[in-house]
Amino acid sequence: MRAVKAVVPFKTRGAKTRLAPFLSPEERMAFSKAMLRDVLRSLQGIDVTILATEDFDPGCDGARVQLNHHDLNTAINAYIRRERDPTFIVMSDIPLIREWHVREMFSDGITLVPGRGGGTNAIFMRDPSHFKVDFYEVSFLKHVAIAKERGLPLKILDSFYMSTDIDKPEDLAEVLVHCPGDSCAYLRSIGVRLSYGKSRISVERD
Amino acid sequence: MRAVKAVVPFKTRGAKTRLAPFLSPEERMAFSKAMLRDVLRSLQGIDVTILATEDFDPGCDGARVQLNHHDLNTAINAYIRRERDPTFIVMSDIPLIREWHVREMFSDGITLVPGRGGGTNAIFMRDPSHFKVDFYEVSFLKHVAIAKERGLPLKILDSFYMSTDIDKPEDLAEVLVHCPGDSCAYLRSIGVRLSYGKSRISVERD
Repeated sequence: MRAVKAVVPFKTRGAKTRLAPFLSPEERMAFSKAMLRDVLRSLQGIDVTILATEDFDPGCDGARVQLNHHDLNTAINAYIRRERDPTFIVMSDIPLIREWHVREMFSDGITLVPGRGGGTNAIFMRDPSHFKVDFYEVSFLKHVAIAKERGLPLKILDSFYMSTDIDKPEDLAEVLVHCPGDSCAYLRSIGVRLSYGKSRISVERD
Repeated sequence: MRAVKAVVPFKTRGAKTRLAPFLSPEERMAFSKAMLRDVLRSLQGIDVTILATEDFDPGCDGARVQLNHHDLNTAINAYIRRERDPTFIVMSDIPLIREWHVREMFSDGITLVPGRGGGTNAIFMRDPSHFKVDFYEVSFLKHVAIAKERGLPLKILDSFYMSTDIDKPEDLAEVLVHCPGDSCAYLRSIGVRLSYGKSRISVERD
């Protein structure tokens, strides 16, 4: 197989607004970068392009930033249209991802990794130029349909860790329970800890 | 290996109260039973005991109801204390479980299947009498600690489908997106369908 590449979209402004009541804008940015580092660590040894709206230092060898001012779908589709090498698209807010997930994503066609709420948290494409992404709404079902329409073999990777994207304060509990690395360490450093309600757990701050 | 058994706790009254604004008490009961049938289907060929607070017809061959009026932990611990055969404990509200998950749970010691929010949605025990369950709060971390204290080999099964327990109206979207069987058919039969908001999807009724 040819060299494998990865694309990680990353928002450098206004990211993770749903964490707003809980984290300040600076904390949200620092936490987003910590999650990105956890994701990049799982992609070690792979040539990674971070699609970002402005330049920044990802603080990680082997990952380069490519500027793109379009929306997520336009940016990714422009990238994969020209790409001939097998490519992963991995969201930057799934810090529970581990290195072994990347191996499990390899397939002969398309691998989709479902996120909670009908989302798609990662895609592997053996031939990226044969596929088209369509994120937002129930993107998982849209991606299943696109793979079928185009006759591409489809694998679904069933992973709790990869399904867990961190958007809302209650999602921070998943980071603290399964404690993946930089993002868990960051939350602890600013005093975020698990709290126990009557039913599900949540988080609170010192 | 000896014959394998499974235990599925099931609440026959007051189940799924967090679905209350969305489903009537009768609908919650019918939906709970549909989820139970989806779970029992994944356990085909295994001797299943349903631990319930009152007798009812699970509508499924090979599953028998055993009455137990204690709380979940007391009921399960009383059961496994006497059990010498390898045993699965599987929650009844994880309808996305598939038959192949059951094979993946086999291990030489304890297998834990994390649920969202720090929960544990299933446990496999090679020697049930060597283990003790402790559900509620962050049961996943408690079960990891119990396995370690007792020197039992520990496997964690990373599954999105099994992590998805259905508690709140928004969880119903997972059932409709991944549409496992009876529980999906039941929701459709009473007019529940996906709805698209600004960010995450949810559900609405006709």
